[in-house]
Amino acid sequence: MTTERVREILSWYRSDNPGTLGNIARLLNTGKLAGTGKLVILPVDQGFEHGPARSFAQNPSGYDPRYHFELAIEGGCNAYAAPLGFIEAGAADFAGRIPTILKVNNSDSLFKDDDPCPAVTATVQDALRLGCSAIGYTIYPGSSQRNEMYNYLRELTNEAKSVGLAVVVWAYPRGSSLSKDGETAMDVVAYAAHISAELGAHIIKVKVPTAHIEQPDAKKVYDKYQIKIDTLADRIRHVVQSTFNGRRIVIFSGGATKGTDEVLEEIRGIHAGGGFGSIMGRNVFQRPKKDALALLGQAMDIFKV
Amino acid sequence: MTTERVREILSWYRSDNPGTLGNIARLLNTGKLAGTGKLVILPVDQGFEHGPARSFAQNPSGYDPRYHFELAIEGGCNAYAAPLGFIEAGAADFAGRIPTILKVNNSDSLFKDDDPCPAVTATVQDALRLGCSAIGYTIYPGSSQRNEMYNYLRELTNEAKSVGLAVVVWAYPRGSSLSKDGETAMDVVAYAAHISAELGAHIIKVKVPTAHIEQPDAKKVYDKYQIKIDTLADRIRHVVQSTFNGRRIVIFSGGATKGTDEVLEEIRGIHAGGGFGSIMGRNVFQRPKKDALALLGQAMDIFKV
Amino acid sequence: MTTERVREILSWYRSDNPGTLGNIARLLNTGKLAGTGKLVILPVDQGFEHGPARSFAQNPSGYDPRYHFELAIEGGCNAYAAPLGFIEAGAADFAGRIPTILKVNNSDSLFKDDDPCPAVTATVQDALRLGCSAIGYTIYPGSSQRNEMYNYLRELTNEAKSVGLAVVVWAYPRGSSLSKDGETAMDVVAYAAHISAELGAHIIKVKVPTAHIEQPDAKKVYDKYQIKIDTLADRIRHVVQSTFNGRRIVIFSGGATKGTDEVLEEIRGIHAGGGFGSIMGRNVFQRPKKDALALLGQAMDIFKV
Amino acid sequence: MTTERVREILSWYRSDNPGTLGNIARLLNTGKLAGTGKLVILPVDQGFEHGPARSFAQNPSGYDPRYHFELAIEGGCNAYAAPLGFIEAGAADFAGRIPTILKVNNSDSLFKDDDPCPAVTATVQDALRLGCSAIGYTIYPGSSQRNEMYNYLRELTNEAKSVGLAVVVWAYPRGSSLSKDGETAMDVVAYAAHISAELGAHIIKVKVPTAHIEQPDAKKVYDKYQIKIDTLADRIRHVVQSTFNGRRIVIFSGGATKGTDEVLEEIRGIHAGGGFGSIMGRNVFQRPKKDALALLGQAMDIFKV
Amino acid sequence: MTTERVREILSWYRSDNPGTLGNIARLLNTGKLAGTGKLVILPVDQGFEHGPARSFAQNPSGYDPRYHFELAIEGGCNAYAAPLGFIEAGAADFAGRIPTILKVNNSDSLFKDDDPCPAVTATVQDALRLGCSAIGYTIYPGSSQRNEMYNYLRELTNEAKSVGLAVVVWAYPRGSSLSKDGETAMDVVAYAAHISAELGAHIIKVKVPTAHIEQPDAKKVYDKYQIKIDTLADRIRHVVQSTFNGRRIVIFSGGATKGTDEVLEEIRGIHAGGGFGSIMGRNVFQRPKKDALALLGQAMDIFKV
Repeated sequence: MTTERVREILSWYRSDNPGTLGNIARLLNTGKLAGTGKLVILPVDQGFEHGPARSFAQNPSGYDPRYHFELAIEGGCNAYAAPLGFIEAGAADFAGRIPTILKVNNSDSLFKDDDPCPAVTATVQDALRLGCSAIGYTIYPGSSQRNEMYNYLRELTNEAKSVGLAVVVWAYPRGSSLSKDGETAMDVVAYAAHISAELGAHIIKVKVPTAHIEQPDAKKVYDKYQIKIDTLADRIRHVVQSTFNGRRIVIFSGGATKGTDEVLEEIRGIHAGGGFGSIMGRNVFQRPKKDALALLGQAMDIFKV
Repeated sequence: MTTERVREILSWYRSDNPGTLGNIARLLNTGKLAGTGKLVILPVDQGFEHGPARSFAQNPSGYDPRYHFELAIEGGCNAYAAPLGFIEAGAADFAGRIPTILKVNNSDSLFKDDDPCPAVTATVQDALRLGCSAIGYTIYPGSSQRNEMYNYLRELTNEAKSVGLAVVVWAYPRGSSLSKDGETAMDVVAYAAHISAELGAHIIKVKVPTAHIEQPDAKKVYDKYQIKIDTLADRIRHVVQSTFNGRRIVIFSGGATKGTDEVLEEIRGIHAGGGFGSIMGRNVFQRPKKDALALLGQAMDIFKV
Repeated sequence: MTTERVREILSWYRSDNPGTLGNIARLLNTGKLAGTGKLVILPVDQGFEHGPARSFAQNPSGYDPRYHFELAIEGGCNAYAAPLGFIEAGAADFAGRIPTILKVNNSDSLFKDDDPCPAVTATVQDALRLGCSAIGYTIYPGSSQRNEMYNYLRELTNEAKSVGLAVVVWAYPRGSSLSKDGETAMDVVAYAAHISAELGAHIIKVKVPTAHIEQPDAKKVYDKYQIKIDTLADRIRHVVQSTFNGRRIVIFSGGATKGTDEVLEEIRGIHAGGGFGSIMGRNVFQRPKKDALALLGQAMDIFKV
Repeated sequence: MTTERVREILSWYRSDNPGTLGNIARLLNTGKLAGTGKLVILPVDQGFEHGPARSFAQNPSGYDPRYHFELAIEGGCNAYAAPLGFIEAGAADFAGRIPTILKVNNSDSLFKDDDPCPAVTATVQDALRLGCSAIGYTIYPGSSQRNEMYNYLRELTNEAKSVGLAVVVWAYPRGSSLSKDGETAMDVVAYAAHISAELGAHIIKVKVPTAHIEQPDAKKVYDKYQIKIDTLADRIRHVVQSTFNGRRIVIFSGGATKGTDEVLEEIRGIHAGGGFGSIMGRNVFQRPKKDALALLGQAMDIFKV
Repeated sequence: MTTERVREILSWYRSDNPGTLGNIARLLNTGKLAGTGKLVILPVDQGFEHGPARSFAQNPSGYDPRYHFELAIEGGCNAYAAPLGFIEAGAADFAGRIPTILKVNNSDSLFKDDDPCPAVTATVQDALRLGCSAIGYTIYPGSSQRNEMYNYLRELTNEAKSVGLAVVVWAYPRGSSLSKDGETAMDVVAYAAHISAELGAHIIKVKVPTAHIEQPDAKKVYDKYQIKIDTLADRIRHVVQSTFNGRRIVIFSGGATKGTDEVLEEIRGIHAGGGFGSIMGRNVFQRPKKDALALLGQAMDIFKV
């Protein structure tokens, strides 16, 4: 049964057709956070992005594509996101048990570009035949190839929306025009989230921002209007504001594996700032299953409050 | 009821089908300037172009996409123009209350090209499903990538006209072949407006030109034939002349935020020179709502005379 | 009523469908030269190519798109050629009064390439909806981008011929591999005309060639076989021969504005060499209307002999 | 009759339609290894890749395309793989006698790129009209052109799966970002196999890996988690694990011609490590037919155990 | 009536549909060599490739497109090959009198690339509407742009075969990776012929090879296996062997104009080596008609033996 909060969230997407609204609702009404308007999503594209050993050697269960479906289901996640092969390897066996998000573009680490652009590795048609609820697409704002990414996203988004799928955008600022610190700078992350929303994303995923301001023109404005960005909660709140004043779902990721306390502290900040949830990958599937389920449970408890 | 003036303007577009004529009429028959043949349009693509904080921190109401629909409606604008996400976020709630123009290409500031080309971020199909009256498209004459922009505009224009939409072209000369002053030079702005008309635009938007002449070959002609460009009204009149001798709607923008007097002075010049109206963005949505509505009212009063 | 000469010319195009033959016939059967097999065409793409002031300041009537339709009709031209916007601005008002040629690609002067390629600015579909008899397309043989131009011309030509339109090719040798003199060299102009014919053009437009020979390999042949190129008539004759031995319509342009005597002298040479006519742009629309009509009349009188 | 093992393997591909499952079954149920879940495939694209003399002079029977069909059939192979021309030259004569895999992209040696990308030389439609069971496609992970290859593979894979064909990917790491040793490094080969599986391949073909580790980030992980890669069997096992934990068919090739003992030793290692089979090209067709058949027999005997 | 030899040749193409087989048969059953399995084809694309004067000044009859149709018909050729314009200029008048091959890509000499790629100048649809039996396509193996050529050939070939046309490939090794001598080297020509066959060509046209070996890796093989390449007949035989062991039609050209004795000597070598015929262009159409017909007759007499 759809809660008041879910109905409210769906009202922000009234331009979408019932098929897409149904899939957004499915994401919001699944798992332990069902009905809260919050989401915890398990993404497993590390194998493609960093290679199998770097991704799965720590917890070799992860070599098996079924493991991640099970982890997401048992952990009570709202959805499971992965590239074509991993989804294909479980879509039939786990059909109807958890919403899936097909990551339709991916980058590997065997070649490095200063101005990267992912390969497009799956289609909207693949998402339909595999019963997915959404497509997932990565953009690298700041790369000289950004336009290619936005152009292709436009095509995919248009097609996805017309067939009733939701669109999740991973926005990772990156490229020759940004410093390393700039990739998680406050102004840059907020800008990347805003771009994603303007490009038509239903759900946006960004990294937790730091208090660094990358762009001089932005710095003047942050100073002049004294935008609050001191605490993590402040910064999350500013990202949420920058994403259509909270009328688009924006969730956060923390990056590399870290200690449980650190992960939970971050999640408390995300929650305090009004973030819609977390996308937890390596911190989950690289832990032993018992620890992973425990961590997911603790994270969800924070978001449930 | 369509006025004599609106009928006259529509007569310039007799090559278009009734669907497109209807949408041009809708733009001309909406708001406080309805029937006058003049237009004031509210465009809000600053969030995409400059980032959310630089656009909305001054007046944080602007983070909310609904705010701009309300501003345009309450201000009596002829239309509201924005990228896909901002239009999607209000299209259903404000359906039928103001004509919308879907900006189908956009540039962000996280990467800078000396010879820029916007990303195409929405489709004609998006404009149809969102109930828009027109698509908006930016060209950068002077950029080495100009042909890519013109080629793609051709495709969009052909499609838009066949489905009864109007086409609005933002012509911003820019690129490695132009000096900074050249971007608003008299010869260059008039040339950019003419190109837009030749490319099939129904409505053309350029910046207010200065008296600078950029191109030596043009300078000879301006001198030889003593083309009048001393006052702003002269320069507006020359742009209108250069745009099919006044048989295409050409409107003007002033750029960065400035004082009210300065804005109104400029609008008086546009009006005096026979310009068809203004596109007012930052000068409107970055002011407090009350001030913004007052400024819009004053601008429209000038155009009504 | 179609004359013997027109029937003869049409017999060269027996591979074309009746729709295309009808449009070629329409071009040949219009205006003061109707039935003679000769053509004088008014092209007005200067506004796009050089900018509005450089094109129309001398005779400001030319800012108005209707002026050129009137000039072509009153002057007794066979056809009027222009880019999309100029055709759209008069196609309905002047429907059925003069055959039109839609220039479907164009270059502007706000950016300069050493190896140029025009933007494609209109479609075959545009030509159909605007009631045009032909599309016009510019190629720059000698440019490193020549293949892009030929490839795209192939697509347009195939489509145009299948829907019964004629194809007019403007062949302007240009690019980093040619000297400035080479652009109008005898060997180069004849070669460009031959390429156009091989690419399937029905009507070919080249510049009047000089006696200069650009390519060393060609020079040997011109010397060895003593090809006559001393007088303008000789050179015209050699171009006509190079264009399928006279079995394709090839017409000539003189370029920049010049004195009446000079223009007429050139036309006498074109006629003496067996050229099929002239394309007269700036020399016509930059003159006062009365002078322009007089000049057109004198030119046509030469071709009628 | 499909064996238990074949049924188990087919269960890993439950996302595929019955057409594709049928073709995978056909590959598994043909030849001397039918029903064992193991495969030995004869590929003959050497003529395209290295030229005819370097490929066939040693055993001139190989110049004739029929020879390879016969060799594969008489040798009891599961399938024969070749480029368009070689398949066309026998498809009708040998129809129904052995499953064929159409290699749809190929590289020749008349031009060398440091960052190579094969030409796409055949289509899914070709595979259908020629009665093939699968398409074969080569990727070069590590090349700067990898994205072009992955993007095109996505299109072909999507089309192939929709028409019931299987997809075999040849994954050959190569390019300016890899050392020569890196092309067969343990981490790189395992990564390439994983990428292929994520891209949706049903069958993956890699080279036998060495114990070298190419990437420093991977080296840390191989050391830290003490991944066993000392023996060939260890390395094969790690590749199989990296390919969805054994739930995708991965087969191996040894490269250049070598002695029989060396070939068989390698095959024993592949078998011991749980590899699904071998792809044997030059080592087969460059030997005299009798020797080739003997070698194939010995190899199959190892896999049958 | 189809001879035994023609039936044998057609049996090599059993993968093709009856439409294509019919067109191959038409080529083999036309002219003085009808039924012999040998072909002499007249190609006239010199006008496009080298310019009209360099091609036709020596024998000015050649400026007229009808001349070449007549020459091919009266000379008893199997087919006439030319670019779009030349075919269009005679297709209706000479319909049904000689099979035509539409050259669908061409290069001109007004711009020179070290790594050339022809422009695509006609379509399969053009070949159909003009009643052609085949398309002709040039590849430049050895050029950095080879993949573009192969990729596009794949599209054309697929389309041509589906509509019942034959495919003739002109294989001219050329590009920055080859020496001038390498363009006609034994290994390179044989390799280029093999690539063409693998790409699906029905008829392959290469230049007569010299005894030079270009590639060091090939040199080792030619030496080791003592491949006979001393006489022209040896070299022709090796090309025929390299082209599917004689199961694809491969014909030869000699290049620039030369003396009659030299031409006939070469043809005797082609015949002695088992070549399927000659493509004779400049050596025919640059001679006076009487001489040209005589030369063609003598060449055919050699092939008839």
